[in-house]
Amino acid sequence: MNLKPLGDRVVIKLVEAEEKTKSGIVLPSSAKEQPQMAEVVAIGADILNDEKKKDQIKVNDRVIFSKYAGTEVKIDGEEYTILKLNDILAVVE
Amino acid sequence: MNLKPLGDRVVIKLVEAEEKTKSGIVLPSSAKEQPQMAEVVAIGADILNDEKKKDQIKVNDRVIFSKYAGTEVKIDGEEYTILKLNDILAVVE
Amino acid sequence: MNLKPLGDRVVIKLVEAEEKTKSGIVLPSSAKEQPQMAEVVAIGADILNDEKKKDQIKVNDRVIFSKYAGTEVKIDGEEYTILKLNDILAVVE
Amino acid sequence: MNLKPLGDRVVIKLVEAEEKTKSGIVLPSSAKEQPQMAEVVAIGADILNDEKKKDQIKVNDRVIFSKYAGTEVKIDGEEYTILKLNDILAVVE
Amino acid sequence: MNLKPLGDRVVIKLVEAEEKTKSGIVLPSSAKEQPQMAEVVAIGADILNDEKKKDQIKVNDRVIFSKYAGTEVKIDGEEYTILKLNDILAVVE
Amino acid sequence: MNLKPLGDRVVIKLVEAEEKTKSGIVLPSSAKEQPQMAEVVAIGADILNDEKKKDQIKVNDRVIFSKYAGTEVKIDGEEYTILKLNDILAVVE
Amino acid sequence: MNLKPLGDRVVIKLVEAEEKTKSGIVLPSSAKEQPQMAEVVAIGADILNDEKKKDQIKVNDRVIFSKYAGTEVKIDGEEYTILKLNDILAVVE
Repeated sequence: MNLKPLGDRVVIKLVEAEEKTKSGIVLPSSAKEQPQMAEVVAIGADILNDEKKKDQIKVNDRVIFSKYAGTEVKIDGEEYTILKLNDILAVVE
Repeated sequence: MNLKPLGDRVVIKLVEAEEKTKSGIVLPSSAKEQPQMAEVVAIGADILNDEKKKDQIKVNDRVIFSKYAGTEVKIDGEEYTILKLNDILAVVE
Repeated sequence: MNLKPLGDRVVIKLVEAEEKTKSGIVLPSSAKEQPQMAEVVAIGADILNDEKKKDQIKVNDRVIFSKYAGTEVKIDGEEYTILKLNDILAVVE
Repeated sequence: MNLKPLGDRVVIKLVEAEEKTKSGIVLPSSAKEQPQMAEVVAIGADILNDEKKKDQIKVNDRVIFSKYAGTEVKIDGEEYTILKLNDILAVVE
Repeated sequence: MNLKPLGDRVVIKLVEAEEKTKSGIVLPSSAKEQPQMAEVVAIGADILNDEKKKDQIKVNDRVIFSKYAGTEVKIDGEEYTILKLNDILAVVE
Repeated sequence: MNLKPLGDRVVIKLVEAEEKTKSGIVLPSSAKEQPQMAEVVAIGADILNDEKKKDQIKVNDRVIFSKYAGTEVKIDGEEYTILKLNDILAVVE
Repeated sequence: MNLKPLGDRVVIKLVEAEEKTKSGIVLPSSAKEQPQMAEVVAIGADILNDEKKKDQIKVNDRVIFSKYAGTEVKIDGEEYTILKLNDILAVVE
């Protein structure tokens, strides 16, 4: 079963803590609007059809996003977040 | 009797709990803005006439939407929600 | 005496309760923003002159609208509501 | 002495109560945002120069408008209200 | 020394009370947002260069404006108000 | 060392009190949003490249601006304010 | 490991205090919205592809930005801030 995000939305999946530690990224827990790291799972049609946006993000990219952005959904035991492309701050390379 | 949504609105019908469980989707009850799953019943003319929007959603699609979006109406004993396309987060495939 | 709504406004008249019951529509009285059913009495010039909007609604249509939308006026003993087209959620067919 | 409203503004003059009663219009005094009836005295240049707007309203028209819209001014003992065209709900014919 | 208003701003000078009385205009002191009468002293370049706006107002015009609009400045003992054209309600002729 | 303002921003430097007094401008200290006088130090590229804006302000102009607009910075012992062109009310000539 | 900012965002790195002192810039600690100095580390694609914006800022530029703008992230022990170009006030030359 898949989630196809509508409009300029993206579906992402949180990266586990141990994995995050290995990557060297630490996100400050005291920050008011805590950013988090996730992996891109699906990209909405409005992004894929936009010449300027489609090259900025692709499935499997690691991204930093604001903690309070988007909506959480659990499917087949896995938790996902659906959010707008504009709520993704950066891609980690 | 039918509901024809105006503008870029969509009429949806909530998916029953038992059916939702079989589908494997669990929506967290503690989330502040609880998303829900529903089936698309009717689509407004502004969506059907928009080249970019008309392919993103169709009648009978299963969709995830924000709990507080839209307005509830009961017709012939059935409950429906009328909401804007933009309040639908994703289609479940 | 007639009311000619300005801009993209519509004049509607509430449908009586007994008539509403026969129609099979029940609007939940506990909802925060209670939708109501009404009949379209007059349509503003901006709607009639808009190719996309003029086919979505016509005089005598039954419509669902948000309770708090619009302004109520009483003319010759009849109560009317003047509201924007965008505050009408759906046409009942 | 005259008032020439700027932009898309209109100058109106309240219709007296006795006259209002004869006209058959009664505006509910309990409504939160009480609409009122008035006569159009002057129309701003932006309306007169707009093909779509200039036919919707003319001097001497009776109009319904929101009570809290606009600014009141007294000139030569007469009270006027200066408001935006968009705050006029309907013309009474 | 002169004030050259930037953008779509206008510099105005309040009309004295005695002069106001002679003119026959009385502005209600109990109104929440008290309008006032003033004389136009200088007009910003964006207004003078706009075909639609430049004919609506000129230096020495008497105007009605909202009391809380704009910023007051005192130059060489004279008080002026700098405000946006949109905060001027009407010209008194 | 110089400050190059980004976008439609301007860098200004407050005019000293004694100098202000000589100029004859007095800004009321009781006003809620106290305007102030300053000298233009640098102008952002978006203003210099805009045909309509570039003639309205130049380096060394004396300007009136809202006290709470912009951000203060101290460089080499001198205090500057960085603000948007739109927060400058008028040029003093 | 690198951060590639999305849209019109920029990644910056705070300039150390001792270095800041040598540069002669002092930012007032009592200001309500404390500006800070930083070095540009990466620039988003929307800025690099915009003819007007791409010449206003480049990697290694020293910039002044609002303290509360953007989101802080720590990567490999280094702290970065991801913010919108519009939150950068000026380049220090």
